[in-house]
Amino acid sequence: MKPVKVGVLGLGTVGGGTVNVLKRNAVEIARRAGREIVITRASAKDLTKARICDTQGIALTTDPFEIINDPDIDIIVELIGGCGAVKDMVLQAIANGKHVVTANKSLLALHGNEIFAKASEKGVMVAFEAAVAGGIPVIKAIREGLSANHIEWLAGIINGTGNFILTEMRDKGRDFNDVLAEAQALGYAEADPTFDVEGIDAGHKLTILASIAFGMPLQFDKVYTEGITQITRADVEYAEQLGYRIKHLGIARKTPEGIELRVHPTLIPDRRLIANVDGVMNAVVVKGDAAGPTLYYGAGAGSEPTASSVVADVVDVVRALTSDPENRVPHLAFQADALVDIPVLSADDFRTAYYLRLSAEDKPGVLADVTRILADHHISIEALIQKQPLAGETVVPIILLTQITREQEMNAAIAKIEALQTVTGKVNRIRLETLG
Amino acid sequence: MKPVKVGVLGLGTVGGGTVNVLKRNAVEIARRAGREIVITRASAKDLTKARICDTQGIALTTDPFEIINDPDIDIIVELIGGCGAVKDMVLQAIANGKHVVTANKSLLALHGNEIFAKASEKGVMVAFEAAVAGGIPVIKAIREGLSANHIEWLAGIINGTGNFILTEMRDKGRDFNDVLAEAQALGYAEADPTFDVEGIDAGHKLTILASIAFGMPLQFDKVYTEGITQITRADVEYAEQLGYRIKHLGIARKTPEGIELRVHPTLIPDRRLIANVDGVMNAVVVKGDAAGPTLYYGAGAGSEPTASSVVADVVDVVRALTSDPENRVPHLAFQADALVDIPVLSADDFRTAYYLRLSAEDKPGVLADVTRILADHHISIEALIQKQPLAGETVVPIILLTQITREQEMNAAIAKIEALQTVTGKVNRIRLETLG
Repeated sequence: MKPVKVGVLGLGTVGGGTVNVLKRNAVEIARRAGREIVITRASAKDLTKARICDTQGIALTTDPFEIINDPDIDIIVELIGGCGAVKDMVLQAIANGKHVVTANKSLLALHGNEIFAKASEKGVMVAFEAAVAGGIPVIKAIREGLSANHIEWLAGIINGTGNFILTEMRDKGRDFNDVLAEAQALGYAEADPTFDVEGIDAGHKLTILASIAFGMPLQFDKVYTEGITQITRADVEYAEQLGYRIKHLGIARKTPEGIELRVHPTLIPDRRLIANVDGVMNAVVVKGDAAGPTLYYGAGAGSEPTASSVVADVVDVVRALTSDPENRVPHLAFQADALVDIPVLSADDFRTAYYLRLSAEDKPGVLADVTRILADHHISIEALIQKQPLAGETVVPIILLTQITREQEMNAAIAKIEALQTVTGKVNRIRLETLG
Repeated sequence: MKPVKVGVLGLGTVGGGTVNVLKRNAVEIARRAGREIVITRASAKDLTKARICDTQGIALTTDPFEIINDPDIDIIVELIGGCGAVKDMVLQAIANGKHVVTANKSLLALHGNEIFAKASEKGVMVAFEAAVAGGIPVIKAIREGLSANHIEWLAGIINGTGNFILTEMRDKGRDFNDVLAEAQALGYAEADPTFDVEGIDAGHKLTILASIAFGMPLQFDKVYTEGITQITRADVEYAEQLGYRIKHLGIARKTPEGIELRVHPTLIPDRRLIANVDGVMNAVVVKGDAAGPTLYYGAGAGSEPTASSVVADVVDVVRALTSDPENRVPHLAFQADALVDIPVLSADDFRTAYYLRLSAEDKPGVLADVTRILADHHISIEALIQKQPLAGETVVPIILLTQITREQEMNAAIAKIEALQTVTGKVNRIRLETLG
């Protein structure tokens, strides 16, 4: 069979890695795919820039549309990122009847419904394994490997920067800002770290995971996101004493009332495998009714791990080039006409357990007040630590773990606790999931 | 589209689970597959036996060949297990042009080359996700998700019984035989536990994993297998003190000289994720040159986890029913004509680190003798513990960790150490892998 011709848009970290992997493993990949896969064209903004890859044999251009409109190109690999002009590029490639492989999570989280609809109309594939959890084939696992299951929930460490920061805080007793500065120096975190530390990047990925797990349209605007900036060294240590680790998780859960879509710091029992996923690594736990919990772990970012998923998608597309579009794996795991618009719950309706840390005066009756408020809101206490006041201080930290309750109840209880004369400052609240 | 008709051979734990999962999730599975999948026929040895599944609407027979020869059946699901008559059934199904889904690891490890050759001739698929690691879609991950990679090695906890025993020994300080008896009572271990505790079952699975990772024919007869029966409570404790866990691993590694295929107890650094996989759970780490290490974790056995993989395979087959056989995912990940008969190394040529435990008289010069022998064989020592003798005893345990060496050198050194007058009994040797 004649070689498949691929055009790559963007020759940065992932684009360069894709060129490197496809060249280095060309023979092995062809032994798998049954035919040669060659990058014949690539675009980059600045052709004079130094590259991490050898571009010999690849016709370069600064205009992505030259490649998109080239009838000789079978597959477009979009690795520019972002949502502006890139959306037009992807839509144009689809309109031209080309299959697309992309690592662009924000594009799919925000515009995926439109993109997949156009792709289905034209009978082309849009593959996106690299958009979630880098080198981990978790999209394939959920969409195909677990296709027999009713998926109940999934929970993932899907932002390496956040996990690096939390791991350093725990391992070395460091403060958030201190570790963030190091992560920026190491290149793990952007100069503007908002996307990572506020959970927006994880929210994009969670949007995609939830759609393929539950068979619903992409709805990023309904994801609740809370960052890790309020996590203190003290929280990390108290969690540890209670047998928990704090991880920044993306959680999607199907309940009888609707879907919970939430990104936030979470206490997890320290014996759970995902609690032991450290540094920049990613992992996703998926709970299916038949398979039970399965976990997928690996590098969530980086040049070659992401390229690994991009190239695997290219191989999948190559295999399906001659297939009947109706028999392909659907973009969002479920047939396009079988997606169901399940309601997404507001944060008030989340049901979860909580870790609470508050500072109270060291006086009789304080604990009675706090526990009475919780009882009034039907919130059961699972564990409680009250520390001795430090010498000369009159304020003591109280740490509580609660059983599962509705978030609205917890918010009301916290407001009353914060209003107590004997309690100083805010209650620091972190959600707790057993993931059992 | 009209429903796909499936015939199931065997209605035991996995067969019954498959019926249950396909019935319970019928609507959700059809929303994914794009058409209905129905089990219309099933065979069982004894039709009067109580079943874990509802067989209403399924035509039952005691003769599997009735189903295999039924022109109305599209896909045969073989869940009888074993290698005798079952091999004939699978070959007959293939000869009849039917696609086959099987969970039968021993059949594939021993006769897979023949079976896949016949299947390729007839243009049918033989799918086997359930044959390795139960509900974990690790075959799919390696064969498709990591198709861009040159795979360097893989290591897996692929026998739940063995892992349950080692976990109990560590957690509760129990002895091997004591835990084995409990595992048998719980139904985790067979009355004859040889397959599990001697590593034969893991060897079957490793054979399959190695073939799809490296693109080589199945060669179970060349797998080195060593069981866990010689592991003592003391070894588990010493390993713990040194920062390691003992796991029964299947390891396949590509070296410039050939492939290592080995199943044996292994010390792993306790911070590695796979060292924290406990109880009956399974996990496989795969090291690709691009993706880096990825790990896949979940239930390795059981009715519904295994059924999850069986049914996922059925969905895959349904999707490929109309596909060109040349463009399908090849059975062993690489095109049949691109498999390479890479040499498999003998145990003498393994290169690994070691944990050694020996008992020596509490006399000057003993350590000097032992370390001299290791030095003579160019074996470097990484760590050493010498314990105080117990009151009234003259023999002390010495525990050594070595750096990586060739197994032949280690065997020669151990023979000399055992020959020392001051050393009593055998040297207990356990291999050590950092999996870094």
